This record gives sequence, structure tokens and C-alpha cells, in this order.
Amino acid sequence: MTYVRPDLIVQQMVEAGARKAALPARQLVLRGFLGGALLAFATTLAFQVALETTPIVGALLFPVGFVMIVLLGMELVTGNFALIPLAVKERKATAGSMLANWAWVSVGHLLGCAVYACLYGIAVTAMGSNMDAAMAQRLIQAAEAKTIAYEVLGASGWGIVFVKAILCNWMVTMGVVMGMTSSSTSGKIVAMWLPILTFFAQGFEHAVVNMFVIPAGMMLGADVSAADWWLWNQIPVLLGNVLGGFLFTGMAIYAAHRSKGEAPAARPQG
Amino acid sequence: MTYVRPDLIVQQMVEAGARKAALPARQLVLRGFLGGALLAFATTLAFQVALETTPIVGALLFPVGFVMIVLLGMELVTGNFALIPLAVKERKATAGSMLANWAWVSVGHLLGCAVYACLYGIAVTAMGSNMDAAMAQRLIQAAEAKTIAYEVLGASGWGIVFVKAILCNWMVTMGVVMGMTSSSTSGKIVAMWLPILTFFAQGFEHAVVNMFVIPAGMMLGADVSAADWWLWNQIPVLLGNVLGGFLFTGMAIYAAHRSKGEAPAARPQG
Amino acid sequence: MTYVRPDLIVQQMVEAGARKAALPARQLVLRGFLGGALLAFATTLAFQVALETTPIVGALLFPVGFVMIVLLGMELVTGNFALIPLAVKERKATAGSMLANWAWVSVGHLLGCAVYACLYGIAVTAMGSNMDAAMAQRLIQAAEAKTIAYEVLGASGWGIVFVKAILCNWMVTMGVVMGMTSSSTSGKIVAMWLPILTFFAQGFEHAVVNMFVIPAGMMLGADVSAADWWLWNQIPVLLGNVLGGFLFTGMAIYAAHRSKGEAPAARPQG
Amino acid sequence: MTYVRPDLIVQQMVEAGARKAALPARQLVLRGFLGGALLAFATTLAFQVALETTPIVGALLFPVGFVMIVLLGMELVTGNFALIPLAVKERKATAGSMLANWAWVSVGHLLGCAVYACLYGIAVTAMGSNMDAAMAQRLIQAAEAKTIAYEVLGASGWGIVFVKAILCNWMVTMGVVMGMTSSSTSGKIVAMWLPILTFFAQGFEHAVVNMFVIPAGMMLGADVSAADWWLWNQIPVLLGNVLGGFLFTGMAIYAAHRSKGEAPAARPQG
Amino acid sequence: MTYVRPDLIVQQMVEAGARKAALPARQLVLRGFLGGALLAFATTLAFQVALETTPIVGALLFPVGFVMIVLLGMELVTGNFALIPLAVKERKATAGSMLANWAWVSVGHLLGCAVYACLYGIAVTAMGSNMDAAMAQRLIQAAEAKTIAYEVLGASGWGIVFVKAILCNWMVTMGVVMGMTSSSTSGKIVAMWLPILTFFAQGFEHAVVNMFVIPAGMMLGADVSAADWWLWNQIPVLLGNVLGGFLFTGMAIYAAHRSKGEAPAARPQG
Repeated sequence: MTYVRPDLIVQQMVEAGARKAALPARQLVLRGFLGGALLAFATTLAFQVALETTPIVGALLFPVGFVMIVLLGMELVTGNFALIPLAVKERKATAGSMLANWAWVSVGHLLGCAVYACLYGIAVTAMGSNMDAAMAQRLIQAAEAKTIAYEVLGASGWGIVFVKAILCNWMVTMGVVMGMTSSSTSGKIVAMWLPILTFFAQGFEHAVVNMFVIPAGMMLGADVSAADWWLWNQIPVLLGNVLGGFLFTGMAIYAAHRSKGEAPAARPQG
Repeated sequence: MTYVRPDLIVQQMVEAGARKAALPARQLVLRGFLGGALLAFATTLAFQVALETTPIVGALLFPVGFVMIVLLGMELVTGNFALIPLAVKERKATAGSMLANWAWVSVGHLLGCAVYACLYGIAVTAMGSNMDAAMAQRLIQAAEAKTIAYEVLGASGWGIVFVKAILCNWMVTMGVVMGMTSSSTSGKIVAMWLPILTFFAQGFEHAVVNMFVIPAGMMLGADVSAADWWLWNQIPVLLGNVLGGFLFTGMAIYAAHRSKGEAPAARPQG
Repeated sequence: MTYVRPDLIVQQMVEAGARKAALPARQLVLRGFLGGALLAFATTLAFQVALETTPIVGALLFPVGFVMIVLLGMELVTGNFALIPLAVKERKATAGSMLANWAWVSVGHLLGCAVYACLYGIAVTAMGSNMDAAMAQRLIQAAEAKTIAYEVLGASGWGIVFVKAILCNWMVTMGVVMGMTSSSTSGKIVAMWLPILTFFAQGFEHAVVNMFVIPAGMMLGADVSAADWWLWNQIPVLLGNVLGGFLFTGMAIYAAHRSKGEAPAARPQG
Repeated sequence: MTYVRPDLIVQQMVEAGARKAALPARQLVLRGFLGGALLAFATTLAFQVALETTPIVGALLFPVGFVMIVLLGMELVTGNFALIPLAVKERKATAGSMLANWAWVSVGHLLGCAVYACLYGIAVTAMGSNMDAAMAQRLIQAAEAKTIAYEVLGASGWGIVFVKAILCNWMVTMGVVMGMTSSSTSGKIVAMWLPILTFFAQGFEHAVVNMFVIPAGMMLGADVSAADWWLWNQIPVLLGNVLGGFLFTGMAIYAAHRSKGEAPAARPQG
Repeated sequence: MTYVRPDLIVQQMVEAGARKAALPARQLVLRGFLGGALLAFATTLAFQVALETTPIVGALLFPVGFVMIVLLGMELVTGNFALIPLAVKERKATAGSMLANWAWVSVGHLLGCAVYACLYGIAVTAMGSNMDAAMAQRLIQAAEAKTIAYEVLGASGWGIVFVKAILCNWMVTMGVVMGMTSSSTSGKIVAMWLPILTFFAQGFEHAVVNMFVIPAGMMLGADVSAADWWLWNQIPVLLGNVLGGFLFTGMAIYAAHRSKGEAPAARPQG
């Protein structure tokens, strides 16, 4: 009996949100650091495998990073977009602690991605002696496709990236929730794998992946400025990720399984 | 001991039917919304992977959506075609509540598919600037193949789509029942995967998939009218899905394991 | 602790045989109907996937049908060839009830295969308007290869098909027994998968698969008469399946793990 | 908690060795018969899949036979090379009973392989009418590569085959031990799979596989004499298998986890 | 309930470190011997499969060795780089015992790799008669790429290999920790698989793999001296592995989940 019923999953979502909102900044940054770096490891794996074979094979492997993050209790800000608002709604966390969590975890992600980008950049370009390495070119191209390509479309480009971010984080947060459907490790792994491969295979926009891909591409020579990065990708992606995770996963699953006026503590277990 | 014996599976089928028939309209619409959208996510994943590799790889991934729906307790009207009639037969639900469930869940599916179709259409065509995108063309072609191609065959076309819908929902409802053969999450996932890939790989007709594919194709420019959609696909597919799910899964498994005059409450557990 | 020790597996084999021999004809026909149809679903899946990719991929997917049959407690006559004789040997069933089981289940298989063949034939040939469909041609070719091709070899052809049937059902019945090595659903699925793919990948002859493939091929236009079907395939295959299942699986595993004079009830559990 | 700690695994190894050494000849021959035949089934599967695709796909499927043997409690002499000497060392079995086990099980393997070779040969050559069948040629070629090819290298050829047999049975016996790391059936299957595919993919020499491949090849026309078979393959392979299994798995794992003077019964469980 | 919470994982990390630091030299060498040899088995498997198909397929299979090492309780010095320092920090082991563990296990690795290299070299070159064998050439090329190719870049080459070793052991030690997230064998296997394939697929530098690949390549004729091996690979790789394992896995996970001043014994279980 490792399956967890939906009403208990909703309860777990609220409690996880409350627990995360209560963590000290130091741990949020550290867990965010590992969260960012592990996702970056998975991103370079997926990109390289895609170059070697076909994109779907890369997408099938990409969830390795997400799974490590969740099983080891690290933080992923995009997942938190779905969980902490529920804790706020049930008055188990404050809006301030929610925003602090999002901010500190994002700082951690940026640091973890930067450290991995430096180490990986050294490895893949042989300390700059081989800038034509396939993976270096792939990261440059991805960084440009994720910024300049939207910028040339103007407002409509901003809208596209925002929509792709909604679709992305609907699935990423489904990954967080699917991980709660099982009390066994292998059940969690398989369940989380499904929505994560679904978003990656379809090329939707994930804020934390982009915190690695775009600065890594810039470091390797992409023609992208910090303003391009934030205005045409990171900001709309964060906003779309918040909306997708909060609305379509957090609130939707909560409302689908919570009856009015019912307090979680009052529900029978099992 | 996570395996669940067939007689207990039959009991679960009846109870799940009764529980679903008793849900309020608001939750049916919301759970149907997520059911439709999650199946649409899986459909675009499968179509894209099929374009990139070969159709069977798409079919092998398509069950991600169904699995998420079932594990998270969302509604799928096609699954309900097998379960609720059994609850009605055992006087644990009324025919009226059954029809209300089917109607509200279908409304939810149509809304969820429409929202996903809008968001996905924006993402894949770059807000209309690239209508030649491979996936846009694929959806247009599928919408036409699922309507016009039957229409040109006349009554025989209507019969073909009806038969494909019977075959489809025989397997989809087997997916629902297979999910009940295990009390563990990974067991449920693997068990559900099998019949779902079986129907998708063979191109049978599923009402909820079509609630996404056809209007999405129409939105992207398929030469299909609302009348084409409903008369030559949605109506015969719903009818075929009802017949296939009710007769070959619901009634057949019930009759194969239920002795005459026996009430479910009287059966020993385990 | 989901693993089941061999001596308890032998006990399960005897008990399952006794239970099956005691079922009423109505349930045998109905469970046989679903057994036949589910195997037919898996056969068209495997054939289509083989056409699309390579035969081994089809063989890797073929066990979906067998797994559904066993987990949902349906009947498969070929499996029963190994189990019921053990119950007869231990005087928990009569030879008459064994033969009745085999006869009624076979009737069910023929009906289930016929219904699926009709529905599938309509779907795949677009109600006869496209007899050149790849799958229609594939079924025709298989029906001829499984009858005419043996017939032209005369007595030696009859011997070949008989031998292939022995090899086939050695593995199919191993699938039944392997399913008893675990008390968990996912363990059962994986364990059953192995021998079933082993026989299908090597093209051995299975009576129930042939109850679908040959009449389906005939219906679609194969140059095969009812006499060809039964004399050159169905009869020698049934006989070979009985021998292979009874001798190499049923009796062999029984004798390998049962000490003389020992009654199953006297064995300690666990 | 299905994981089994290494010190308990060592205890299981000793106990399994003692239990196997105590079996009567009749059961050893019968279990050896099934052990040989099941491995032969897996070998023809692997060879055919390798012909159809690429050798690694065959190697990925080859463990089906080993898994069936272990789960159903059949005998495999190569596995016993690692287990029974430990029982002898701990005075739970005699050297005589060990050698009797090895001899009777080998007799069983030879019989099982011969029966399968006859049946398979009939099936694959259409009772001799098609000696050019790809699998017949593949078995002939394998039989020659496993004997003549070593013979032409003289003493050095004998040394090569002996070394390949050491490497082979190091992994095969690791398969036996890995199966003891779990108390669940699916855990056992996955754990056993790993070393078995490792040896088969690298073409090492396994005595029981060769008890099928070489006589089957000879029966189909390979230019190999009984003396070639035994002198240049079977004898050095058996010796290498004994050394590899006994030294690198049996003794090595025993010594790595057993403290001096400690009796297994004195160890706490869990 | 096989999932293990992160705070208990941290506790396991400390305890495993303490236990390993307390083992006698004899067992460390023996467990290191098997650790080295099993990793070498996996390396030749991965290289051969990569030659036969594509590198990612080799990387998908490489974790077989790591999994066997961990499940059977063997030693891997790179894993110990993350665990024992935590035991030292919590005063459950001394720095001296830590360094002794690292030294004796490394001696064992070098011996195990050498023995496997000799046996494998004999098998793959047919005792030297076929030095052009693809795998022999592959090992020669790998040995040169892992030494000479860095040497020609001078100090920058040393830096590159050091960085690749950091990235490598970040993942290898994640493999060790992921294995602690489950109490079931199959859960452990799947969880460990993920980071191990991630590092191998990206070609990072692992000290124990190199203890096999470089001397094996040298033995087969690579133009690499013992000084090249140690100065341009083994030493910087060991240092990078220590840093990566200690800093990014050991300390990072410890600090992310341990509150200040808290002793592990004081934490509630479950």
C-alpha cells in the first residue's frame, strides 16, 4: 500500500508549503544552490544526448536532476510556486515568508547554476582552447533562441515566452505533486518522471533551467546582454511559471479535492 | 502483497462508480477540466515524438496523461462509462446522477482542452507568426483525418468511427481497471500503461483526445466545421466509447467475477 | 517480502487448477471470451509495431495482453493445460471437469477472437474500402504462413507445427507460473513478461493467438479453408500446447519441487 | 525494507549451498534439465534478436533464462560453483556431496539442452528442409567459433577460453548473489539482470550456454567433433567457471564480509 | 513506505562513514579489490556497447558496476571521499583512520583493476595474437586521451582534468547518497542509476575507472608512461574527486539538512 490518496496529497502539498516557508535563509540558499546545480547537470546531459541521438532521448533523461532534487529535499523555486500559496491560503505561512522563500531560493539557484556553468565551461571548452566544441555551440544557440528570438517578435515574443512558461510550470509542479502520490522511492521516481519529460520534450520555458542555460551561453560567447536575458526571458518566464504552477496545479488540485470549510486536520488518514 | 484479487477489483469498480456519481457539479467540471488538459498535454507530446521518431514511440509515451489523471483522482468521462453503470445496476447510484456526471465531466473536458489548445497554439505557432510549424500542420491534418475522412465515406464512415471508438474505450476502461489491480503507485502506473499504449498505438478513437485534437486543428486552420466535428466524430465516438466501456469492460468483468444474487458487502476481503 | 518460494508456487499451481476446474460453464465462456479478445488486441498491436519498426519491438509489447488476462483473472486455455492436470493428479479435480474447462474456455476464446476480428477488420480496412491496408495484408500473410506453408510440407509440416506448439506453450505456461513468484502486481507483471516475449519473438505457435490470426486472415481474404485452419494448425497446435504445457512446465516443476507422498496441506508456509 | 544486508547475503550463500548439496540425484537432474533448457531458450532468443538488430539488444534480453531458473528454484551448475564450496568450508556439506551435485546437475543440463536443441532444430530448419535458415547458420558458426577457433591457436587458445570462462562465471555467480540482495521478486529480477547482461554482452564463455550451443551447432552441421567440443571448450570452460565462481565471487564475498571465527548462526538478523 | 527522509539520509551518511573508517586493512583491500574489478567490468561493457551503438547506450549500462559495489557492501574510495569526512567532523572517526581507509581501498582498487586488466587483455586480444581488436584500440586511445591529451595543454590541461574530476565525483557521491533514499533494493538501484549515468555520459574523470583504463591501455601498448598516468591524470583526478565529493555532496547535503548543534542521535526516526 504505497499509493497515497488525493485528499492526503492535498494535505501534503499544504504542509510542504508551510515547512518550506519556515526555513531559514541560509538553508534556502544552500538547498537552492544544489537545486540549481543539479538541474544544470541534467540540462547538459539532456542537451548532449540530444546532440548525439535525437531530442526525445535527451528529454527522457532530463528528469534525473529533478528527481535528485526532490528525493534529497532540495529546493526548486518553481515547485514552490504551487505549494507555498496553499500554505498562505490556509494561514500556515505568511505572504512575506513566501516571497522570502522565492527570493532566497532564486539566489541559491543563480549561484548553483553559475558555479556549474563555470566548471562545465572549463571542461567542455578545454579551458577555452576549444570554443567550437559542440556543446559550447549548443549552449550559445540555446541562449540566443531563448532571448533574441523572442525579442525580435516584440510584445508578441514576450507573450509567447510567458505562455510557454505557464505550460512548463504546470508540468513541473505536477512533477512535485506526482512525487507525493507514493510513499516508496521507486514509485516517487517513476511518478515524477512523467510530467517532467512531458514539458522538456515540448520545449517549454523553465526559469531554473534558463538560469543556467542563458548565462552559460553568454559566458561562452552568445550575443545576449544581461538585459536581454532578464527582460525577454527570465522575468516573463518567472511570471508565467508562477501563474502556471499556482493556478493550474496548486489551486486547481486543491479546489478539486478540498470541500468548502473543511480543515485538513479534520480529515481521516488512509 | 500489493496485488488486488479480481473479486475485490469488481467491488472497487462499483464503489468508484458510486463515489463519482455523488460528486457535486463544481468538482466534476474542475476535475474534468484537469482531465481534459492533462490528456491534451500527453497528446501533443505523443504527436511531437511521433514526428521526431516513429509513431510507436509516441504511443509509448502517451499514457503519461492518463496516469496523472487517475493517480491524482481527476475525472475522465470515458472511464466513467464503465464504472458508473455498475453502481446504477447495484442501486448505489441513479441513472440521473450518472448522466449528470457524464455531462458535467464532458463540459470540464471541453473547457480544459480549449484552454490547453489556446496556450499550446500560441506556443507552437509563435502567436500565429509561424503557421507552418510541424506540430500545427500535424494537428490540422489529424483534425481533418478524424472528421472529413470519415464524412466522405458516408454511413460507412460513421460506422467505422463508431467501431474504432468501441475498440478504443475497451482499452481505456481496461486502463482504469488495471489501475485497481495494485495498491502500490508504481504497480498502478505500469498496469495502467499497458492498455493505454495498446489503443493509442493502433489509432483508435477516444472522445476526450478528440475534444482537444479536433478543435485545436480547427483553430489552427483545419477545414472542418463544428458540424463535421460533432456529427462525424464526437457523437459517434462518444456512443462507441459508451458501448465499448460499458459492455466489454464494465459488464464483462462484472459478470465474469460476480456470482448471481451476491452483494458486494457480503464478500470477504483478501 | 513479495517473493514466493518454489514449494508454495507448486501449491498455488495445484490450487489454481482446482479452482479453475470448478467454475461454471457460463463464467468459463465469458472469461475465455475476454481472454481471447485481449490476446487478439495484443496480437494486432505486436504485428503493427513490427511492421512499423522491427519484429522484436512487437514481441517486447505483445505480453500486454497476457498480463491483462492473468491480473484480471480471465481464462487462457493454454495456461490451464499446465495447471488443471496437477489438480487432477492430486484428486482436487476430475478429468471430466478438466476437459469441460478446456472446451468451454476454447469456445469463449473463439467467440472473443471472432468479435475482435470483426471489429478490427472493420477498423483496419475502413469497412472493406481499403483491403490493401498494411495490417490486413499482414494478417492474410500470417494466416497463410500458419496453415498452407505447413500443408505443403505434408506430414513433416504437421510435425513442425506440433513441435513449435510444444516450445510455445512451454513458455506460455512458464508465464503463468512466473506470475505466481510474486505477491506484488509489478513483480507479477515483470516476471510474466519474460517467457511471453521469449516465445513470441521466436515465432512459436500459440493456439489462442491462432484462433484470432487465422480466422481474421480468412475473413480478410486469405486463401485458407476451415479444414486448412484446423487440420494444419489448430489441432496440432492444441496438441503440442497440451504436451508442452503439461509435460515441461506442469509436471516438471511439480516433480522438481514436490517430494513423494507429500500432501500440499502438510507443507509449512513461508 | 526489501534490501538484504551483505552479512545476511553471505549467510544465505552458505545456506543455499548446503541445501543444494543435500538434494537427491533425481531432483538435481530434473532441476538441471529445466535449468539447461531455460538457458537454451534464452540463448536462441538472444541470438535471434542480435541477428535482427544488434548484439547488445540480444544481451539485454538474455537474462530472461537465468531469472526464470533462479526464481523457480532450478539448478545451475555454474552458480553452484560459488555457493557449495562455502557450505563445505563451514562443514555444512561434504566435498563428495558437492561433486555429486555438480555431476548430476551437469547431466541434467546436457539432457535439457539436448531436448531443446532437437525441438528447436526441427522448428528452425523446418525439419531439415531449410538448413540455410539464418539461426541454423548462426548456431553452426557459434559452435565453430567456440571450438575450432581456439584449437587453431593451440595451448594459447586453451588459455584464452579458460580466461574467458573465469570472467564469465565471475559475473554469473554475481547474478546468483545479486538475486539475494532483495526479498522482493522485482528487486531480485533487476539485481540479477545486471551481471548477466554484463557477461553475455562481452562474449565470455559459459559452460551451460555452451552445452546447448555447441551440440546444437554440431547437430545442424558444424564441422566440430565431440573431442573438439570437450577438449577445446567444455573442459577448460568448466574449469575456468569453477575458478571464477569459487575464487572471485564465493570466497571473495565471503572473506570480505565474514570475520574470523564467527559462525553464521551467531549473527543478529536485520 | 520505502522512502527515507533527508534528515535520516544525513544520519546514514555519517554512520556509513564511521563504519567504513573502522574496518581492518585486510577487508578494505579485499572490498576495494572487488570494487575496482566490478567497475572495470562495467567500463569494458560500456566501452564495447558504445563502439557497437552510440556512447549514450554505453553510459546507460555503465551503472551496473556501481550498483553491484554498493548493494554488496564493497568499497569505492570516491564514495568514501564524501562520507568519512562527515564522520570525522562528528568525531565518530579520526582523520588518520579516514586516510588509512582511502589508502587501503585505493590499493585494493589498483589490484582489482590490474587483475581484471590482465584477464580482459588476454580475452580481448586472444592472448596478444590480435592487438588490432577494436576494444584493445579503444582502451589505448582512451588511455592516451586521459593523459597525453591533457599533458600537451600544460598547466591548463592539469586544471581541466581537475575540474572534470570535481564534476565527476559530485555525481558519483550523489549516487552513494541516492542509494540511501530507499530501503528497497529496486528503489536503491533506480536511484543510484541516475547520477552515475549522468557523469559517465558526459565524460567526466573518475579515479577508479582510470585506475583500470589507463594501465590497461598502457599494457595494450598506449604511449603513456607511469609518470604521465599519475601526474597528468591520477593525482589531479584524485584531488578533484576529493574536492567534488567532499564539498558539493558531503558537506553541502550535511549543511542543507543539519541544524546547528543538533546531534544525530537526538533526531526522531520516521
